[in-house]
Amino acid sequence: MNNGPIGIFDSGVGGLTVLKEIMSKYPNSNFLYLGDIKRFPYGDKSKEAIIEFTKNGIDFLISKGAVAIVIACGTATSQALETVKKCYDLPIVGIIDKTIEYIKEKGYKKIGIIATSGTINSNSWQNKIYENIPDAIIKQNACPVLAPLAEKGLADSEIARFAIKQYLKNFKDVECLILGCTHYPLFTNIIREELGEDKDIINTGKILSERMSTFINDNSQEQENNKGQYQIYITDTQDSFANVAYQILHDDEVAKKIQVIDE
Amino acid sequence: MNNGPIGIFDSGVGGLTVLKEIMSKYPNSNFLYLGDIKRFPYGDKSKEAIIEFTKNGIDFLISKGAVAIVIACGTATSQALETVKKCYDLPIVGIIDKTIEYIKEKGYKKIGIIATSGTINSNSWQNKIYENIPDAIIKQNACPVLAPLAEKGLADSEIARFAIKQYLKNFKDVECLILGCTHYPLFTNIIREELGEDKDIINTGKILSERMSTFINDNSQEQENNKGQYQIYITDTQDSFANVAYQILHDDEVAKKIQVIDE
Repeated sequence: MNNGPIGIFDSGVGGLTVLKEIMSKYPNSNFLYLGDIKRFPYGDKSKEAIIEFTKNGIDFLISKGAVAIVIACGTATSQALETVKKCYDLPIVGIIDKTIEYIKEKGYKKIGIIATSGTINSNSWQNKIYENIPDAIIKQNACPVLAPLAEKGLADSEIARFAIKQYLKNFKDVECLILGCTHYPLFTNIIREELGEDKDIINTGKILSERMSTFINDNSQEQENNKGQYQIYITDTQDSFANVAYQILHDDEVAKKIQVIDE
Repeated sequence: MNNGPIGIFDSGVGGLTVLKEIMSKYPNSNFLYLGDIKRFPYGDKSKEAIIEFTKNGIDFLISKGAVAIVIACGTATSQALETVKKCYDLPIVGIIDKTIEYIKEKGYKKIGIIATSGTINSNSWQNKIYENIPDAIIKQNACPVLAPLAEKGLADSEIARFAIKQYLKNFKDVECLILGCTHYPLFTNIIREELGEDKDIINTGKILSERMSTFINDNSQEQENNKGQYQIYITDTQDSFANVAYQILHDDEVAKKIQVIDE
């Protein structure tokens, strides 16, 4: 068993939705978060670029003491996870596998996915679903403006509402909707209004947090005198980051825990 | 007088609207274009990050032989131009000064500006306008989703139309509207529908091309056997780039002139 903080990596502020779920489940573990806002958004960039950015992020988190890594970014999970897993000795987990496990257990067949263009075009979700649920009926849609709106603190804007209406036009008959980008839980209320109460809107960070006890127990021993700490690193300054971080984490002290690094 | 290609720098595909205007005015000069799509969009990033990206871009263009530089990006002009001008010996021009000259000549007082968040928050346009037209009445608005939509080839989408309606709600009484981001000429038709035929919608690249004869003549001698050439470099692969480049330049050969560099 190792003993150190869990590193959580995202392209921006969205992965904090994952940090929040994991922290509430494991309040005695310590966490380091890196939001690569200098290169945000990842959604439209090439696989090669995303692998490079993800490796840089993991290297940084390791240099700060991380003993295991959560890729809390849909695009990085779908484009880079398989590659980076082979490059490091420490455990690395993304947001796809546990969600597929959950969907299979629930018996869902009519599955909707919304994510960035990069994630949708990679077919990562679709391929994994068909591997596990060969008779699934999948609808997927790329939503290129949602992550930038969330990053700017505009998740509750009229433009977000209109965009979501457009993106979900053909999703009325799904049983569940995978939020394939970790920024999207910020739009949950609008999505629910659009799809109705009976659909399972799947927050991948929440599913991951509920199914990662082995990962956490193997890697992050409770520390009696120094527990439940987290530190956020970002690769550029941005005024809106602390506000959105507060909206997600509801921690009055969050601004003090954000440090800009020169990466 | 130097003798070589003019380097044109932008964060992405939008600066091609400037290249197009300059090429049509100076068909015998040669041009090198760099679109930094690996770090796109610049709109929300810090001044320091934008200065760093812009210097990297200029260094690259110089390494390829550029003898003068056009910063064909609204955000880089407003955040980085003054700083980078001091760092290089060669002439560098942005998209703001010539537009201010034009507005002053036209006698406009009620002036609208739309641009990225970074450009609007920097107040670069507003300050320059007040310096030159102290009694100007200025309305400005940041439009964070427009550049990403243009970059994805979605300038003519329903979401773009809705966003523009929202952004221009309070602009009905302006005499002119500055498109403070070089991606925005791609939305001209929608903006015209929204604002009406009587407003002067100002394409900064076009104004620049009409007022840069000294800059071009001093820096780019016509070359008898090798004239009217251009080459586009981009810092990442992206499927949609060539399509949007074609929509802007209407050159059937454009795809062959795009080269991905490892920057």
